[in-house]
Amino acid sequence: MKEQVFTYEQLYTFTHTVFIKMGCSYADATIATKTLLSADIRGIDSHGVARLGGYVRLWEAKRINANPSIKVVHETPSTAVVDGDAGLGLVVAPFAMQVAIEKAKNVGTGWVSVKNSNHFGIAGFHAMMALEHDMIGIAMTNASALVAPTFSIEKMLGTNPIAVAIPAGEQPPFVADFATTTAANGKLEILQRKNADTPLGWVQDKEGNPSTDANALKKQGALLPLGSDREHGSHKGYALGSIVDIFSAVLSGASYGPWAPPFPAYIAMPENMPGQGLGHFFGAMRIDAFRPAADFKANMDNWITRFRAAKPAEGYERVLIPGDPEREMEAVRMKEGIPIVASVVGDLKEVGDRFGITLQSLIN
Amino acid sequence: MKEQVFTYEQLYTFTHTVFIKMGCSYADATIATKTLLSADIRGIDSHGVARLGGYVRLWEAKRINANPSIKVVHETPSTAVVDGDAGLGLVVAPFAMQVAIEKAKNVGTGWVSVKNSNHFGIAGFHAMMALEHDMIGIAMTNASALVAPTFSIEKMLGTNPIAVAIPAGEQPPFVADFATTTAANGKLEILQRKNADTPLGWVQDKEGNPSTDANALKKQGALLPLGSDREHGSHKGYALGSIVDIFSAVLSGASYGPWAPPFPAYIAMPENMPGQGLGHFFGAMRIDAFRPAADFKANMDNWITRFRAAKPAEGYERVLIPGDPEREMEAVRMKEGIPIVASVVGDLKEVGDRFGITLQSLIN
Repeated sequence: MKEQVFTYEQLYTFTHTVFIKMGCSYADATIATKTLLSADIRGIDSHGVARLGGYVRLWEAKRINANPSIKVVHETPSTAVVDGDAGLGLVVAPFAMQVAIEKAKNVGTGWVSVKNSNHFGIAGFHAMMALEHDMIGIAMTNASALVAPTFSIEKMLGTNPIAVAIPAGEQPPFVADFATTTAANGKLEILQRKNADTPLGWVQDKEGNPSTDANALKKQGALLPLGSDREHGSHKGYALGSIVDIFSAVLSGASYGPWAPPFPAYIAMPENMPGQGLGHFFGAMRIDAFRPAADFKANMDNWITRFRAAKPAEGYERVLIPGDPEREMEAVRMKEGIPIVASVVGDLKEVGDRFGITLQSLIN
Repeated sequence: MKEQVFTYEQLYTFTHTVFIKMGCSYADATIATKTLLSADIRGIDSHGVARLGGYVRLWEAKRINANPSIKVVHETPSTAVVDGDAGLGLVVAPFAMQVAIEKAKNVGTGWVSVKNSNHFGIAGFHAMMALEHDMIGIAMTNASALVAPTFSIEKMLGTNPIAVAIPAGEQPPFVADFATTTAANGKLEILQRKNADTPLGWVQDKEGNPSTDANALKKQGALLPLGSDREHGSHKGYALGSIVDIFSAVLSGASYGPWAPPFPAYIAMPENMPGQGLGHFFGAMRIDAFRPAADFKANMDNWITRFRAAKPAEGYERVLIPGDPEREMEAVRMKEGIPIVASVVGDLKEVGDRFGITLQSLIN
């Protein structure tokens, strides 16, 4: 696959200009750009600029409101429901996470469920907003249905990711961010481009049989919940994905389960949607609402150091702490640039043409 | 395997008497008995009376305090840390969950981390305490290390379960309760008794190779995190187990990771424990802190009905909702009695002898 390497600044300028051209305020374009590109920096290429065209097409289809009035529509001292007013999830999510953080400052924790939003980029970015406040951050979202529950052949849940960011002291923070499926959809896309098969346990075909077809989703197959099959605990992955769906969408009044709205603008909206847009759920817990932050961080340093020192199996150099691979990728990409595959560069060129920005400006 | 069937009342009387003989107050013996037997009723046999002897032996080894002074040692409006004073986890956990519920009544949600406790029975029992208050309940606990992180051969985490109970309206509640491993240890014990192999993906041998040996743990092998191997997402199960460990034990000041205290009294306590006892974490979220409970419950009924109607794969009758199997088991066992395997009946007889209660009393 041909790739082209861009600096963060190049992608930032281009993306920011696109959001401005869509009609976003300068402040919204800034936060949307930072949120989106956090995926590219951290190596989660499927959720970064690769999706910029998708957001533009949703806006063209009038499914995204570039000038939303995002607001808290219900609250208690530790909770809120946020109505995203169909704004970019990239903007709605940081707003809602900030509400959670403010509530945690006041009463120890804050929990915010969001309706009327759409894709919010990577969950980890939002969870990590809590870190600088010495808080634990939690972020999750529902998504359009690609996953079949255990024993089923019907797609009922999205890949519904969960992120948890936990501060440490001397050590870098613990940052887990994962889809509640065996493999994320982005991994299938990589295999599709290579014309390669998936391992068994990632997808099933339309009859529910085990499959290794990376294109199974296009043939009425489905992604499998974390655990792959009943014998290996897929009912647990199914439960996790369901919890994310309920916390994000049923608690807020968003559209849930098989009615979650699709990301591709060419797919019709589900009929009889029971709620508004996609849903998210955020949490912030102040460390010193439990114990002195310094004591906690000293223990986290010890936790991380001990786990990193766990005996590796033969053939492996070391045991990783959640967040290690993404942090290491970030260090590399901020120095060496961000490789973008040719098909995504092509899509970005089209997006640029749409707004009269040449991709040239991106390369300067 | 020879089994003997007991009524709930028989097991209740015997267990309650044992806790009284240990020196528990009547109230503590009552809550401990109800907590413990909720496992037998719901079909999670590994966590019920099968463990009664284990608790007695921990008390004999002076690792359990029958008359603890359980108290809140730190709090904010939405959080607390509870010190269990080495009391039975079966008593400490309901105390802490009640604190979470009270906080949720006041400020919308309550979050309680617990130190200086021990095994608390099934997580689902505690999470379900929230249901009658129209709250979502969450419960988790760390446990002694049986699980190797991805890429490791060292046991660093317990099976660290997570339970989430969510109320519905006409439909029964959604109750997920699962270990963050591919298979719980109780499933290995069943295979050991049958001299049978495990499926691949449940355990690894001491070198980290895939294994089907149900006795692998006794030969320096380890349980595998949910996902089984890296290719099938074991790093996600490892992250989930780690989050449970940190929320339960690092946030409270309990002993975490490989230093979590063992359940069998014959195993020495870990050296250089960094905290006190086992840790738990509980949450309660008032539904109407987000939206009117009636609206939420109507949507949950719709969610449950729709998922139950998802097209089953060939060979399967229906798609289950988390909590269905345990609720159905409870209906059967309250009517037909609770079968206890011969080895557990033998252990209960020994426990009875220890206190001068004949198991006869159990059968009357």
